[in-house]
Amino acid sequence: MSIRAAVSQMGIDASKLYSDLAANMKPSMIRELLKYTARPEVISFAGGLPNPETFPLKEIKEITCDVLDKWGTGALQYGTTEGLPPFRDFLKDMYRKEGEFTDADELVLTGGSQQALDLFGKILLNKGDAVVAEAPSYLGGLNAFEVYGTKIVHVDMDDDGIKVDEFERLMKKMARSKKMPKFVYMIPTFQNPAGTCMPEKHRREFLDICNQYPDLLVMEDDPYGKLRFEGEDQPSLKKLDKDGRVLTLKTMSKILSPGMRIGIVFGPKELVQKMVVSKQSADLCSAGLTQYIAWQYMARGHVPAQLTKIQTLYRRKRDLMVKALKDEMPEGVKWTYPHGGMFLWVTVDGIDTTQLFMESIKKNVAFVVGTAFYGDGRGKESMRLNFSYSKDADIAEGIRRLAESIKEMRKAK
Amino acid sequence: MSIRAAVSQMGIDASKLYSDLAANMKPSMIRELLKYTARPEVISFAGGLPNPETFPLKEIKEITCDVLDKWGTGALQYGTTEGLPPFRDFLKDMYRKEGEFTDADELVLTGGSQQALDLFGKILLNKGDAVVAEAPSYLGGLNAFEVYGTKIVHVDMDDDGIKVDEFERLMKKMARSKKMPKFVYMIPTFQNPAGTCMPEKHRREFLDICNQYPDLLVMEDDPYGKLRFEGEDQPSLKKLDKDGRVLTLKTMSKILSPGMRIGIVFGPKELVQKMVVSKQSADLCSAGLTQYIAWQYMARGHVPAQLTKIQTLYRRKRDLMVKALKDEMPEGVKWTYPHGGMFLWVTVDGIDTTQLFMESIKKNVAFVVGTAFYGDGRGKESMRLNFSYSKDADIAEGIRRLAESIKEMRKAK
Repeated sequence: MSIRAAVSQMGIDASKLYSDLAANMKPSMIRELLKYTARPEVISFAGGLPNPETFPLKEIKEITCDVLDKWGTGALQYGTTEGLPPFRDFLKDMYRKEGEFTDADELVLTGGSQQALDLFGKILLNKGDAVVAEAPSYLGGLNAFEVYGTKIVHVDMDDDGIKVDEFERLMKKMARSKKMPKFVYMIPTFQNPAGTCMPEKHRREFLDICNQYPDLLVMEDDPYGKLRFEGEDQPSLKKLDKDGRVLTLKTMSKILSPGMRIGIVFGPKELVQKMVVSKQSADLCSAGLTQYIAWQYMARGHVPAQLTKIQTLYRRKRDLMVKALKDEMPEGVKWTYPHGGMFLWVTVDGIDTTQLFMESIKKNVAFVVGTAFYGDGRGKESMRLNFSYSKDADIAEGIRRLAESIKEMRKAK
Repeated sequence: MSIRAAVSQMGIDASKLYSDLAANMKPSMIRELLKYTARPEVISFAGGLPNPETFPLKEIKEITCDVLDKWGTGALQYGTTEGLPPFRDFLKDMYRKEGEFTDADELVLTGGSQQALDLFGKILLNKGDAVVAEAPSYLGGLNAFEVYGTKIVHVDMDDDGIKVDEFERLMKKMARSKKMPKFVYMIPTFQNPAGTCMPEKHRREFLDICNQYPDLLVMEDDPYGKLRFEGEDQPSLKKLDKDGRVLTLKTMSKILSPGMRIGIVFGPKELVQKMVVSKQSADLCSAGLTQYIAWQYMARGHVPAQLTKIQTLYRRKRDLMVKALKDEMPEGVKWTYPHGGMFLWVTVDGIDTTQLFMESIKKNVAFVVGTAFYGDGRGKESMRLNFSYSKDADIAEGIRRLAESIKEMRKAK
């Protein structure tokens, strides 16, 4: 080490300088656990990665060349904070036709949906505010909200998603104590991590309850809506909303490529415009080149065939994983049966999944522990398995090893 | 309007829901004024846009194809929050050779430097904290800090950048009242908006003063360091720092393309790692494809020729603008003479530049009013002119019209 570096290490003590918000930031548990899974010999059901086989490389290459030929420097200059205007217009038309986008809405593009989660947290949440979320829920969302000092209040789920009667009781209780949540954060379709999908009836009941509270906002995170490979489409909360209270987050990550970092957000105009003001100071604008590519990918009509390709692949992967679970798992292990999306949720009676993780990683298989998906310490006997990413043969082998670990832990008790 | 939309407009009142942070967010004044400048007939010296003639379209196209051929799906998948590992290694080596990166540092990539400004604000600033900045200073930086309830304390500049003796007095005063700033935000090289460059001697004196305060952090924003077209290079604050207190922000925006959204940040390890944790919940990761492109652009050695191209063009533009100012401006108008970068700063005795803006825009010429660059209302008789973007003929014509507006306003008094 150079003298200069040695001196530098005696430099300032950064920890003295941190803000109150910084104290709420913890490295994501998934991220920490994923360090174990980076080795190539590990079969990982941990990440939330789309299968790269589905990335349309040929089309992207062709489109990128065309974009650079046709729009050239325009795709390389600073863009507007709201996102590429013709792409936004295209998306507004599309979602208007699908019955989701209304004249009272505004639509903007963000750096993945994650940026929208953070920026809405930033403009809406004060220390001590509550956000209601499904139990379990997407940990990237929970983290983004918790940074602002927010308390997550969970509502239990069953195989049909959030328990609507429990939600109703909770809202009444929160209203009585004048501690209403700023919003309800929902992933109603192919929930992350549970894999469940709310039936239309439940969605309507859910919104009817929300409609009794004039200032209650609903944030619908919908990354997987188009990834249905079984059963019938259910309308989004946004589509069913008659009250202008639903804000919806879509993404190109699960359809085209997550590396493009394109989230699509629409909902009540004023709120979305306020989010844009906060995006201005957060990053000025998102990358232009990938917005042009995504726009042309959609405008050229590639999406339907791409969805079929993804759905076919993910159905096969889900089937393989469910078959392996049936074949390998001992008594007292339950799992959800997703009709779409990328995840299933497994509960193992009497087994702490953090311990299970440490055992399975010795056998080179990884998952995400259940506690990561709760803001309140629950989920100790659960885990999330991703079925979209792994190779076919790895799914069977990974589940076999996981079952082996469970059996060994049971035996050792 | 559909009935549904009409009902929606009676929906929730979002303004009731906003957080304390949201109250600190104001749409950028530049952004509001730029609405006037979007018309094609307007000669705009307002934006901070690099000249698109300099974007290396041919190389970018070639590299993009190679990237998709060679790394394919890897460039389209989620990436690490810190940024593309081989690109980070490449940059660490480069800045180590340049004497800027040390073993006590960490280097990460962000969504433009603007994201780094925001995330450092987020992890460092509480309501009521102070940040010391040059007067005037980059309004995107000031906005990003003000969101967190921060007070900007300005230090005056002269043609050599910040007045070091004034900075020393301020620090003593702040230390006495136990209200030390969290950090000093500096753009020492080709300052935005002033265009000035601090001589090495002043940089050393500045750091000597900082070194008397053990917990004082310095944030060096260095987007224009390589855009020198006259005079001799001055070492960066990072290079002169012996105390491990300087955090430096670089960018690909002014060298390659702003649409890539690639900021490069390095400095004290712990601090940069904390920023990465906050980036995780802010957007998970930045776009991968543009990181691969920027990496290969640098690794293939294109930068030196590109810099020469940019420097040659910008010198010509600066010369044209300075000549036009000399030829056209009446008495009582002063301007800085930048040796690099993209801006010059003009002061017009006795003229409110906000009024001047309204007059000049009638003549289809635009700039940014001086008050935008202060957190304290100063700058009423100043303005920022960008010389990098406009066509050669437009520079002369735009300055002529601006001078005409000034003369007319003087006459009308």
